[in-house]
Amino acid sequence: MRNIRLNIAYDGTKYCGWQIQPRDITIQEVIEKALSKIHKKKVDLIGSGRTDSGVHADKQVANFVTDIDSIPANRFRAAINSLLPLDIRVLSSREVPLEFHSRFNAFRRTYKYYIKLADVGHPRYRDFCYLVRRPLNLNLLNDLARELVGEHDFTTFAAAGDQAPTKIRTIYSATFYPEGEFIVFKICGNAFLQRMVRSLTGTLLDFSFKGKTPEDLRFILLAKDRSLVGPTAPARGLFLNNVEYPED
Amino acid sequence: MRNIRLNIAYDGTKYCGWQIQPRDITIQEVIEKALSKIHKKKVDLIGSGRTDSGVHADKQVANFVTDIDSIPANRFRAAINSLLPLDIRVLSSREVPLEFHSRFNAFRRTYKYYIKLADVGHPRYRDFCYLVRRPLNLNLLNDLARELVGEHDFTTFAAAGDQAPTKIRTIYSATFYPEGEFIVFKICGNAFLQRMVRSLTGTLLDFSFKGKTPEDLRFILLAKDRSLVGPTAPARGLFLNNVEYPED
Repeated sequence: MRNIRLNIAYDGTKYCGWQIQPRDITIQEVIEKALSKIHKKKVDLIGSGRTDSGVHADKQVANFVTDIDSIPANRFRAAINSLLPLDIRVLSSREVPLEFHSRFNAFRRTYKYYIKLADVGHPRYRDFCYLVRRPLNLNLLNDLARELVGEHDFTTFAAAGDQAPTKIRTIYSATFYPEGEFIVFKICGNAFLQRMVRSLTGTLLDFSFKGKTPEDLRFILLAKDRSLVGPTAPARGLFLNNVEYPED
Repeated sequence: MRNIRLNIAYDGTKYCGWQIQPRDITIQEVIEKALSKIHKKKVDLIGSGRTDSGVHADKQVANFVTDIDSIPANRFRAAINSLLPLDIRVLSSREVPLEFHSRFNAFRRTYKYYIKLADVGHPRYRDFCYLVRRPLNLNLLNDLARELVGEHDFTTFAAAGDQAPTKIRTIYSATFYPEGEFIVFKICGNAFLQRMVRSLTGTLLDFSFKGKTPEDLRFILLAKDRSLVGPTAPARGLFLNNVEYPED
């Protein structure tokens, strides 16, 4: 028995998120089907965490246990890719200790949210970002984002009906910066609530457009009141950028 | 009367090329409609040349004559963009001499063709490139491409039924190089036949996969026989990158 770790990238546009759903097609399901074809039996794939419907990944991490001896660990990449649609790609495969668990061992997650001015630059990549029509105030956005760093109860930014036992999360960094033709909001934390990054992004943009202050943001964070947030930014701009493990 | 020059970028995916067609929707048509709305009468837009169905542009150049005095030349950009779909963007607008003609005055055109290995890197931008499944031999591709430089009769690479009075074109440069996650084939010439860049790209890739030599390419160029070329590369990877004028 070997435990195989996969680093995976995907264009989530057509998928109902990572995690298997009763009705809709998901990324986990598509990869499990490829694994099951290789193994000629059902294989479970453990992911580092869910990504929401329409959200992408630069690097999602998952693992599965295999009883196939004939495929070297690093060759699972090509074997799985040959059975996957082109919007999901295994970037690498390697053997990890049997104890390795993609979700429990992950200690840090990073997301990148891509924003673009609707009227500037080339329109080609607009389906992978959020087009905004007003100029961005990067200084103010970064002043607002700084308020998120540290350990906070993020109830204000949780989705309605979120079942997480605690809404306390630790944010290590949160910054806006230009990257090519985009403005990126990069946020790194121990873990995130469902839709939390999109809610944060939408609120920071909304607050910056309205000229609100870091104090205003601190206030709504402490208020634990979902009615105070801005509109949720669309899924298409969000990428799970990295998941980190002690073994990396 | 003022002559206004536009630099335009577009995602050509949904359009039947630049030039107005009786039935299908084209980029020229969409921009002319915006101009006609601003002028409250029909306005003709002159482009530097056609791009084929599905082909994109980083910089297409076009001009139109206006009798509106109230809009400064550089404000036409925003006025037109406000009436365009998001896959067509005017990058700049400025006044040029009345003699300026986007097509007749253009002395050099540059195209970029984006290629990507299907199994490497992020799948997100795969609709804007040609995915190939075999590793590329950049040295051989550049040796082959070098054969294109100079003045040649490109009958071999013309589309069936091409009506151009002469198939002689001058190529100033033609190179393959890495750009981010892509391999780009960049070709610069005085003008190009319809589908010529895609036919050249497809043939160079095909020849490189088959280990053919620069002599083989020279042979088919001289043969003026369309049956000798490789498959035409798909439109989605092709960008009109630049059009140059003496005034630039």
